Amino acid sequence: MSGLASRLSKVAKRHLTTSRTTVQDTARSSARSLAVHASSAPRPERPSFPCVEAHAARESRLRSAVCSATSLTSPTPSSSTGPEPPYARPNPTSYKIYHSDQSLPLTYAPPLPSFDVAYETWGTLSPAKDNVILLHTGLSASSHAASTELNPSEGWWEKFIGPGRALDTNQFFIICTNVLGGCYGSTGPSSIDPATNQPYATRFPVVSIFDMVRAQFRLLDHLGIDKLYASVGSSMGAMQSLAAGWMFPERVGKVVSISGTARSSPSAIAMRFAQRSVLMADPNWNNGFYYDGLPPHTGMKLARQIATITYRSGPEWDQRFGRKLREQPEDGRNSPRAPALCPDFQIETYLDYQGESFCLKYDANSLIYISKAMDVFDLTSSALAELHLTPPAPRSTPPPLPPSLASQPSSPKHDYYHSMLSHSKSHPPPPNPPAHLPELAEGLRPLANTPTLVLGVQSDILFPVEQQREVADALRMAGNPMVSYYELGGVWGHDTFLLDVQNVGGAIRGFLY
Amino acid sequence: MSGLASRLSKVAKRHLTTSRTTVQDTARSSARSLAVHASSAPRPERPSFPCVEAHAARESRLRSAVCSATSLTSPTPSSSTGPEPPYARPNPTSYKIYHSDQSLPLTYAPPLPSFDVAYETWGTLSPAKDNVILLHTGLSASSHAASTELNPSEGWWEKFIGPGRALDTNQFFIICTNVLGGCYGSTGPSSIDPATNQPYATRFPVVSIFDMVRAQFRLLDHLGIDKLYASVGSSMGAMQSLAAGWMFPERVGKVVSISGTARSSPSAIAMRFAQRSVLMADPNWNNGFYYDGLPPHTGMKLARQIATITYRSGPEWDQRFGRKLREQPEDGRNSPRAPALCPDFQIETYLDYQGESFCLKYDANSLIYISKAMDVFDLTSSALAELHLTPPAPRSTPPPLPPSLASQPSSPKHDYYHSMLSHSKSHPPPPNPPAHLPELAEGLRPLANTPTLVLGVQSDILFPVEQQREVADALRMAGNPMVSYYELGGVWGHDTFLLDVQNVGGAIRGFLY
Repeated sequence: MSGLASRLSKVAKRHLTTSRTTVQDTARSSARSLAVHASSAPRPERPSFPCVEAHAARESRLRSAVCSATSLTSPTPSSSTGPEPPYARPNPTSYKIYHSDQSLPLTYAPPLPSFDVAYETWGTLSPAKDNVILLHTGLSASSHAASTELNPSEGWWEKFIGPGRALDTNQFFIICTNVLGGCYGSTGPSSIDPATNQPYATRFPVVSIFDMVRAQFRLLDHLGIDKLYASVGSSMGAMQSLAAGWMFPERVGKVVSISGTARSSPSAIAMRFAQRSVLMADPNWNNGFYYDGLPPHTGMKLARQIATITYRSGPEWDQRFGRKLREQPEDGRNSPRAPALCPDFQIETYLDYQGESFCLKYDANSLIYISKAMDVFDLTSSALAELHLTPPAPRSTPPPLPPSLASQPSSPKHDYYHSMLSHSKSHPPPPNPPAHLPELAEGLRPLANTPTLVLGVQSDILFPVEQQREVADALRMAGNPMVSYYELGGVWGHDTFLLDVQNVGGAIRGFLY
Repeated sequence: MSGLASRLSKVAKRHLTTSRTTVQDTARSSARSLAVHASSAPRPERPSFPCVEAHAARESRLRSAVCSATSLTSPTPSSSTGPEPPYARPNPTSYKIYHSDQSLPLTYAPPLPSFDVAYETWGTLSPAKDNVILLHTGLSASSHAASTELNPSEGWWEKFIGPGRALDTNQFFIICTNVLGGCYGSTGPSSIDPATNQPYATRFPVVSIFDMVRAQFRLLDHLGIDKLYASVGSSMGAMQSLAAGWMFPERVGKVVSISGTARSSPSAIAMRFAQRSVLMADPNWNNGFYYDGLPPHTGMKLARQIATITYRSGPEWDQRFGRKLREQPEDGRNSPRAPALCPDFQIETYLDYQGESFCLKYDANSLIYISKAMDVFDLTSSALAELHLTPPAPRSTPPPLPPSLASQPSSPKHDYYHSMLSHSKSHPPPPNPPAHLPELAEGLRPLANTPTLVLGVQSDILFPVEQQREVADALRMAGNPMVSYYELGGVWGHDTFLLDVQNVGGAIRGFLY
């Protein structure tokens, strides 16, 4: 008899002895009370797990919302029947939508026949349309980078955008889009496929960072904006920012790349793979076809917990949480408090909270597609060759003058251009460059004449500082004499770009001048 | 109408239009074929996801094994009906079991009334019983550290144990146990609770590293071994090794702590929390009561994928996998290969494989309990005070002589003891010690006179090298003049202790002499 079979056979016999059935929880309960009556000693209660029950409770809340919404006898369901994913309520009154009926070429698939790009703007477009900054988002952000008249709620980069801020609305006209593949107004897996009149779900094509940028530049065409003063982005936004400079050297004045990469590393792919895996294993995911049912909220919560680990750094947690436990009422006993298997350390309740508060705010398929777009991003020359992408020539035009100088009739242009040149002595080429560095330099050739700011954070474990140095080194090896490179300390890890207004904002402001 | 309700209502109307029902997959299929017949254009096929189907296929294989095993009309089920968890077949012919009917005190719960410790040994116990090394395991290992006559299959530290090896069986008698809470023969959540005649499941008490060591020393008592020549462990084994020296200073001659910690950090807790979360969210986990049904194999696979990320390091993956994709037959097309949402990069297939091959080999509840024991491990004085643990006095006896010297009638004892003293000049106290270092030093006082080897790996992200320095620093601050400290480079990360026979083995061998 096999080991498992033998064990299970024994288990089955034990069941017969104790007259218990095992198929369902309900059967279990009744059998248990039976057994309690039949035996002399009371059977100990089974422990409960609030952290697991939370999944079922969420499922139940969502199910009641679905039932009341789809019931034809109840045409006006209550608004209090469940959590409402914001991505399920496209709201063109809070952002603008550019719709194109002309197809969008894609890197890995036939063109999208039509598409939408949701966007918001801040500041005033100059008459010459030469003060435009295109701001790119990270994985899960919407176009709502800062509050607007249409949508006064706080944006994800609120303190970086405004009069006198890093992106100075007194000088610049800032555009932020929801990326292609996203779920906040732009075309993505949750959008209706015109071919089926159903959501695309996983029939949506795999998109690339290049495709996202291509869609953004179609929006710029639509707005009559020929050139960007600068392309700015952090995290995945930095990938887009570099890609924009690469694809359209003549149309992008300056590039800002914060805590990003020009070539996703296996470690970062591994972390995103873990997130996709837990998400796709959620039965609600249903191969991506969940839009007429319940979303994979548990998988989303678990994925976000993993992601959160990569967004912050250990040193911050040491300072913030240390080994402190969640607060619990004193039980008056003098014995050590028994640890719980559910979240008990404050670091655990923090991650649990981050997952819980995200799991219904974002579309699961968007997470899968956009994280994949990050994984496949690679600007080394061999990777670009495999995509049959012809690198454009580096720009021939001089870098743009800041608006303040451009408006002066006799501006000190020579001094300004000289000040753009980096002092490469402060950052000599690395003694042991990674093997792919020459290929990356070759791939980055189209950016050779584009002033570029690269900023990294030493405590970042998702886009580690080595990758920031790599981008700066490769740009310099590609012949770019205008690379500004900064490394920040601090304990905030990858999230520094959201939090460190003074240092991140200051570097951007100085570079954009 | 609320956003979600509005969306779902629209979805419901769309369903009516296309005559499709949505409740179950079977209903979906039949409705789809109906729709295909009814509409003019064929509906595009839904994509398939082999990585998700793998979970269902595994479930199906297991279910058929369960059915045939529990069917009374089939008393001799085939041995080929499914994967067999090795932990489900206790096999005292391949290891020994020490059974105690005397209760075992626990840190956080009432005593265990009885318990088993599975163990294996290598080498020969000296007549004076003074050549014993207790080898502690990491989280998921069994007592099978190396091949034996009873079990000739390769052990988890095969190349470190044997004649002339790091743990030299010509000199030493080595004992390795399966830890309390484990599933390879020692008492754990999958063991039968004598009070209910059912597996403990999550009625099993939370155990601590101290409890594991207490059980091991009860085994030593049983074997008549009063003193250990050394206590040796890596990863969680290093925690046990330190705890053994702490609890029984007079009984432990030397301590070896490799890639461990004396105080689990919030980062490590976060990584283990992520694993427990995905495991406990698997419906098969059933609050831990799955022993009469199907184990949470999908949760185990996902948990192992996450764990594997913490066991190796980015640099190794850069070298080993880089950005290579899994091999696929050429499709003859000249267009770029479209990336898959299932594992596609080699780093992804590697993690997938690691998860798949582990998910039925280990008990899910053991993973939860033992990872929790690691989280709560903390040798700072305040944490020990909360546990009402009275620190024993540091040992008064001199460190043990190596067998080769002990057997010589006039051994150069003075020289030997002198050589044990570390050269602390090569490792001065840190200029910016972590805030908890003085408390850790105070907590480690019982180890003040115990020669200790601390070894860390610079590419370890789970037990980072800072924690290794911390252990060495705290021991020295506690007054220990016999701390040997090594840092290894290399790219293997945490797993270095399993792989680097030359450097890890060499340091141990040199220290044990």
